[in-house]
Amino acid sequence: MSAARTEDRTAGAEDRTVRVALLGCGTVGSQVVRLLREHADDLAARSGARLDLVGIAVRDTAADREPWVPRELLSDDAQGLVRRADVVIELVGGIEPARTLVLAALGAGASVVTGNKALLAAHGPELHAAAEASGADLYYEAAVAGAVPVVYALRESMAGDNVTAVLGIVNGTTNFILDEMATRGLGFDEALALAQELGYAEADPTADVDGHDAAAKAAILASLAFHTRVGIDDVPVAGIRSVTAQDMAEARDAGYVIKLLAVARRVGDDGARGISVRVHPALLPATHPLAAVRGAFNAVVVESEAAGRLMFYGQGAGGAPTASAVMGDVVAAAAHRVGGGNAPRESVYAQLPLLAPEQTPARTQVQLLLADQPGTLAAVAGIYGANGVSIESVRQSRPAEGESQARITIVSHEANEAALARTVEQLAEEPRVREVLSVMRVEGE
Amino acid sequence: MSAARTEDRTAGAEDRTVRVALLGCGTVGSQVVRLLREHADDLAARSGARLDLVGIAVRDTAADREPWVPRELLSDDAQGLVRRADVVIELVGGIEPARTLVLAALGAGASVVTGNKALLAAHGPELHAAAEASGADLYYEAAVAGAVPVVYALRESMAGDNVTAVLGIVNGTTNFILDEMATRGLGFDEALALAQELGYAEADPTADVDGHDAAAKAAILASLAFHTRVGIDDVPVAGIRSVTAQDMAEARDAGYVIKLLAVARRVGDDGARGISVRVHPALLPATHPLAAVRGAFNAVVVESEAAGRLMFYGQGAGGAPTASAVMGDVVAAAAHRVGGGNAPRESVYAQLPLLAPEQTPARTQVQLLLADQPGTLAAVAGIYGANGVSIESVRQSRPAEGESQARITIVSHEANEAALARTVEQLAEEPRVREVLSVMRVEGE
Repeated sequence: MSAARTEDRTAGAEDRTVRVALLGCGTVGSQVVRLLREHADDLAARSGARLDLVGIAVRDTAADREPWVPRELLSDDAQGLVRRADVVIELVGGIEPARTLVLAALGAGASVVTGNKALLAAHGPELHAAAEASGADLYYEAAVAGAVPVVYALRESMAGDNVTAVLGIVNGTTNFILDEMATRGLGFDEALALAQELGYAEADPTADVDGHDAAAKAAILASLAFHTRVGIDDVPVAGIRSVTAQDMAEARDAGYVIKLLAVARRVGDDGARGISVRVHPALLPATHPLAAVRGAFNAVVVESEAAGRLMFYGQGAGGAPTASAVMGDVVAAAAHRVGGGNAPRESVYAQLPLLAPEQTPARTQVQLLLADQPGTLAAVAGIYGANGVSIESVRQSRPAEGESQARITIVSHEANEAALARTVEQLAEEPRVREVLSVMRVEGE
Repeated sequence: MSAARTEDRTAGAEDRTVRVALLGCGTVGSQVVRLLREHADDLAARSGARLDLVGIAVRDTAADREPWVPRELLSDDAQGLVRRADVVIELVGGIEPARTLVLAALGAGASVVTGNKALLAAHGPELHAAAEASGADLYYEAAVAGAVPVVYALRESMAGDNVTAVLGIVNGTTNFILDEMATRGLGFDEALALAQELGYAEADPTADVDGHDAAAKAAILASLAFHTRVGIDDVPVAGIRSVTAQDMAEARDAGYVIKLLAVARRVGDDGARGISVRVHPALLPATHPLAAVRGAFNAVVVESEAAGRLMFYGQGAGGAPTASAVMGDVVAAAAHRVGGGNAPRESVYAQLPLLAPEQTPARTQVQLLLADQPGTLAAVAGIYGANGVSIESVRQSRPAEGESQARITIVSHEANEAALARTVEQLAEEPRVREVLSVMRVEGE
């Protein structure tokens, strides 16, 4: 504990001040500045100290800013700024210089509040260790699902229960795109263009549509839920580029919706104990609570042994919603400066193994184009059976007049992923299967 | 801080023990015992101390218990037990002896985790003051909405934002009854009988169906959301006994559902600043997130300036879900014993006035039986206009053949409640209005 911190704690309430430094002043940062100014009295009453914004580090001090951003606080010396603060808010994003700055802040004894999912998913253990070593707090509610307080929920509320699964819609861009495809029949490219036009997607949409943003969040959620270190490289990812308007229409007809899900599960209570973490588009029953999540909203379902199913829902992005999450963390960090105590430390005591596909159960929907000749369906069913995969449902579209091919949709029961992959391989090799049109995961009950 | 507590903090991690006493061993209590035993290692890793259950106070030590409840820990000396504990879990319910026991525990320096909404809503300030005086924690996640961590969310996650409204379905019994009425066309009495048969309603259902349970929770939610003391006596209550199957059917046809809501709002940012807290059945648009909350589930929508709309959803009652909420609090309280720090203290700095009806905006739906004669609708509209209440929609059912009366449904725009009440009074006095059939609040957008 630094000397400054001890002084703060022993000073009278009216004299207490917590020095706050802000790194980055974009969409979220400028809303943080607004909340710090507009709600100064409320924030002081709730945290026990005046929150004194001592500086705002930006790359370009001459750039245009929102009118409420005090220009005299702008600085391009981020390194110098973090040494003058009790709480550092990191909204720079990306790995460097964010990592160096956060480590410098923690090293100097300042608590850090960050919304940087990429940094946490790549370097979480290093950051947590630095916080623990210096006695400072590391908070990151804004890194997952914007305003939705799912980090709090997993880190604190669920601490007395055992989480079995986390399923989340944690990327608003892809949810908006899929929603437009589902409700308006747009193709992926059209829906992406619309999302870009409306500001929901960036000019380079890779991080969103290919699932990397969701994978970073999945890693953070899984680490919290299962008390196990999960990094972004541990998360297999499939994005939404291959989802078609036809997939959407067929899903709807079969009582499903298609969502990009971050999924983390604990597998095998008694057998191979471990966890499975991944991001992929999936079919969800239309009655599942996540199926109704519209537009750019986020929602996370947490399933646990005692609590059953919980859902947390709200705005997953945007300046003000994300700033709300940041400020909740700032108040908590400031209150600890004044009254003692700490944020929960990284909890990775369980260190469950990340399971290989052979150990992971999954359900899939496979669409095939079949030769319209006797015995074809039996051959297909035989391949499922030979791999120990049982079939939940088969739907067949009769071939159109004059066509000699039938389209068939098969949903499996739960089976291990390796067996499902072998099944698809063998289906592709079977001569009477003209084409494997699509393979998609099925989630939820 | 007690000497015992200081010792705990300085002892080696492997020696740390937090003594836990349980008061009450019914549905929730016996699940707490199960979780303490089955998850002992997880709980120790997360809280930093072994949680040692030192005793279970019950009225009848000879009564049947779940097989995992250790009989040797049962005691009828609750007063003696609370003095031997670091953390006391109060699941006795009701006001006395719960109040005396909680005060004794806090007075002895023990932290308290309670699920007792009635006690908190009636004596919250006294309990919070006792916790603050002794430096102990007071936690009560389980008092509102079972497993749904909305107390955490309001007390901690939203601390950097300003809440404008809380709308909750916080009583599973009434939600089950209303849901059965809506989906199966049952009358209130039939649906209540079914709820009793299935164990969702008690033999004496008064606390649930008349809204008193929801009112206690509304008081707790409003206190947290608005940093203002709100007691149960501050909450006007209307229950669901008067809701009919016909109300349900008509609501559905008009695109609404009827839910029993706990509503707390901050009113008038610039004008009469204050809050309105109440419990009543209300029409909600079928598209509102709370409209889809089925059966005995609970859900709470929190609306705030920066975060926008958040929703928290899950099981609102039952032994295991409620025990999950209790155990989350126990881990937090135990972690503070070991590592220092405290739960957030009662925050009532804002102390906003509770507004009188004249100052409170509301929307209502009024159903009238009108004489089928010219000028009647104009007379009704005139009464609305004279009271400054503008009309959003009017639906009229033509009188059946041979009848001389027309049924009309009027939904108002937002107006102050006193004006709405005067409107209804004057409608009742207007000769061409044969009968005021029903008046119901409309909530949500």
